[in-house]
Amino acid sequence: MGKQNRTAITPRRDQDFPKWYQEVVKEAEMAEMAHVRGCMVIKPWGYGMWEQIQARLGDMIKACGAENAYFPLFIPLKYIQKEAEHVEGFAQEMAVVTHHRLEKVDGQLVPAGKLTEPLVVRPTSETIIGESFSKWINSYRDLPLKVNQWCNIVRWEMRPRVFLRTTEFLWQEGHTAFATAEEAVTDSLQMVNVYKQFSEEWLAVPVISGAKPAYDRFPGAVETYTIEAMMQDGKALQAGTSHDLAQNFSKAANISFTDSDGEVQFAHTTSWGVSTRLIGAAIMTHGDDDGVRVPPRIAPLHIVIVPIQRGKDTEQDKAVMNYADNVLERLKGITFADNLPMLAKVDKRLNSSTEKRWNWVKKGVPVQIEVGPRDIENDNAVMRVRSEESMDKSFVSVDDLVANASSILDKIQTTYFDQAKKRMDESITDLKSYEELEKFFKSADSYGFVRAPWLPSDVEDTRLKEMAVTIRCIPFEQKQEKMRCILTGEETDSVAIFSKAY
Amino acid sequence: MGKQNRTAITPRRDQDFPKWYQEVVKEAEMAEMAHVRGCMVIKPWGYGMWEQIQARLGDMIKACGAENAYFPLFIPLKYIQKEAEHVEGFAQEMAVVTHHRLEKVDGQLVPAGKLTEPLVVRPTSETIIGESFSKWINSYRDLPLKVNQWCNIVRWEMRPRVFLRTTEFLWQEGHTAFATAEEAVTDSLQMVNVYKQFSEEWLAVPVISGAKPAYDRFPGAVETYTIEAMMQDGKALQAGTSHDLAQNFSKAANISFTDSDGEVQFAHTTSWGVSTRLIGAAIMTHGDDDGVRVPPRIAPLHIVIVPIQRGKDTEQDKAVMNYADNVLERLKGITFADNLPMLAKVDKRLNSSTEKRWNWVKKGVPVQIEVGPRDIENDNAVMRVRSEESMDKSFVSVDDLVANASSILDKIQTTYFDQAKKRMDESITDLKSYEELEKFFKSADSYGFVRAPWLPSDVEDTRLKEMAVTIRCIPFEQKQEKMRCILTGEETDSVAIFSKAY
Repeated sequence: MGKQNRTAITPRRDQDFPKWYQEVVKEAEMAEMAHVRGCMVIKPWGYGMWEQIQARLGDMIKACGAENAYFPLFIPLKYIQKEAEHVEGFAQEMAVVTHHRLEKVDGQLVPAGKLTEPLVVRPTSETIIGESFSKWINSYRDLPLKVNQWCNIVRWEMRPRVFLRTTEFLWQEGHTAFATAEEAVTDSLQMVNVYKQFSEEWLAVPVISGAKPAYDRFPGAVETYTIEAMMQDGKALQAGTSHDLAQNFSKAANISFTDSDGEVQFAHTTSWGVSTRLIGAAIMTHGDDDGVRVPPRIAPLHIVIVPIQRGKDTEQDKAVMNYADNVLERLKGITFADNLPMLAKVDKRLNSSTEKRWNWVKKGVPVQIEVGPRDIENDNAVMRVRSEESMDKSFVSVDDLVANASSILDKIQTTYFDQAKKRMDESITDLKSYEELEKFFKSADSYGFVRAPWLPSDVEDTRLKEMAVTIRCIPFEQKQEKMRCILTGEETDSVAIFSKAY
Repeated sequence: MGKQNRTAITPRRDQDFPKWYQEVVKEAEMAEMAHVRGCMVIKPWGYGMWEQIQARLGDMIKACGAENAYFPLFIPLKYIQKEAEHVEGFAQEMAVVTHHRLEKVDGQLVPAGKLTEPLVVRPTSETIIGESFSKWINSYRDLPLKVNQWCNIVRWEMRPRVFLRTTEFLWQEGHTAFATAEEAVTDSLQMVNVYKQFSEEWLAVPVISGAKPAYDRFPGAVETYTIEAMMQDGKALQAGTSHDLAQNFSKAANISFTDSDGEVQFAHTTSWGVSTRLIGAAIMTHGDDDGVRVPPRIAPLHIVIVPIQRGKDTEQDKAVMNYADNVLERLKGITFADNLPMLAKVDKRLNSSTEKRWNWVKKGVPVQIEVGPRDIENDNAVMRVRSEESMDKSFVSVDDLVANASSILDKIQTTYFDQAKKRMDESITDLKSYEELEKFFKSADSYGFVRAPWLPSDVEDTRLKEMAVTIRCIPFEQKQEKMRCILTGEETDSVAIFSKAY
């Protein structure tokens, strides 16, 4: 279907990747920017992916011992102010509620009922959850405490981009408190590993996990761990973070406990989150010039059955629809991967079958089945698999389809991951000097990440900044060789990942 | 356990119902009011119930053809202003965002970056979703359109009450558009029936469904349908509403379509929602003087196993814990009701077993199992069923427990519903005159709802208002007899439900 250089999405990825992304999100009916400054509307196909992410990642988070809860949207200014670095980090992008009603003045509605203390719409919830923790935690018996919330977040965004950077977005944020520093370290590492596993096994998005440079940590954290994915334009996307907050927030919010010796101590806290940005990551990793390609494990729908009705013979059209329903019925109860229910439906809309077909290609449903008048007799169907380059038709018996549906989905999932993994692995260039690195990022041909020796530093290098290159992370995977830092020439035993990024 | 007049909750329901409610929510660790004015923190046990509600009701809503989506939190003032009644209805309780960052002035953080147009935090989303609908709907082929969102809502609340009336709450709101008036009527009726079914079959909360008086409709609706539950103090609680908006919002937001004859028409829209208030409804319907009683079908946990460890003999304590784990293992895979997974766990906290037992009584877990050293040999356990008056111990073999767990849960569910249904049915008093009604509501002994003839009117009766009595609904269930309206003396063939209410 992608033959003859005609593609469903214009422009193609190689022509203008950012524009392609915008178009693909629109054409797949995943989301759109709202008229409200920087906010997005997540449409059913995009939200369906988010529901799958919530369900699957939600289970993994619960398995780590965190319980879901819900904390207020509004944060009094005085809470936010408690942690100095934190407030600095978010002050530039906070929506502030100052009034609690509207009044008509000269026929115009104006804000009225001014609040004595303004409220900030949560840009993250460390401060407000810390307030609850300080009440809930008294004794070492109350620890560890692990909560997680799925909610909306607001960070005022000057250059919004659907799913990647929006004023309002949806996320999950976990918040924990422990008796010891070691447990907090362990937890923050465990959760970045959960994110890596989820990203790779469910979103089919390979990532590099590691620690952020000190100057790029979450405001108030002593360590920020990250997973970094490579988009198809070679740029990095930070896809999830986990923070060791040590005692910074517990001291600010007075989260203290009496230990088993009767001593009062401050707790050690962590926080970690992923957001609707993951959907953007999946699109920019798997999408092609015909649209989105959704990995089966997070797809809201796996098999769509399109009845080919000619609209000339009512009896025949009815027979085709009955047959489609019959195929659907036989697909019920199938599971794939780790006992996930296979989701199928018949597309009964009034549109033409060609419109429907392209609609589902662009949406990236893993498998399309077409059934027409001639298929009924032979109990056949036409199958198109979204992961196959040309999406050629193949003729299958419905019995075979039922028997193989599960393995077809598993194979699509693997294909998407393998393609992305191969691309990433082949696009990491090992360099040994700043000159090479500069040449790399100034060249129009260069693509992907650079891996190079770096001696961790508290200050961002201005030369990198000028090139819009950032250190994405100090990967956990290190060879521990003695090398020379490409920025300072000093001895170091660690490499870092350098890249342009979203 | 409720013997000897000692109860886990003070005061008892008959002493001070509102205070009992507050205490029971606190003692069951379901939620608490936050320091943030009028907002609540929903704790894991309360949020767990909300997750069950989301899952079960979510399925029912999807089965009605609505797809989940997500729309912006912020609504520009100009959208809100479009529907005159609507803005009047909500103007007094809207949180208004006026700035988008904070600045330090004399060491104090103050709002900065004033918005040219203030944004309202959604008090409901008809206006913002209408804006999307007006773009998405062009042809009759785009109809019907049904979306639903699970989200947070803000209505500034001067007298907040946990779960029942809070500045921020969680809810689901469905929004639909149809080509014809009939379809909108049918949809709004269908959804109030879904709410009735969900409330009765899942929350075990019996309700009376019907239409709101005209003056009490949702601002902008031509008909508001409601489900009204009776709390244990005899007061009514509105537990869900469904609105037929006719063309009021479609005209305001220009939701129009070209029909099959090529004529441009305005769509007919509906909206419907239930909120975290349902949790309050369940608590005030089923709770007793020892705490909350959670209906199994919405319980986050069905069976808790408490190991009785004496703390004197380490080997014995270990054996007890192993046995508890073994019982848990044997309970795995059990389902009840409509194929719901039975959820069980071992309470491994360090607290004493008495503390644990009372903790779970107050939380209202349906079944408690205690296992101690003597149970191991005989493969026995001690069971306490929360729906039984005295919660007496019964000794059961683990085999019997496994065999009967499913029917025990079903029975608890039925018991809760039957008790509530009986109480409600016995507490509806049929009256024929205003004098009787006045006497009823002015008497200290009267309890429950009054059902009396009423001729629907657009204006609220001031005498009722003065008594703080409201017409809850004109029930769907009517005898269609000719009667005299108790307020006007005019002929009518309908009765209404009168009550004090939350």
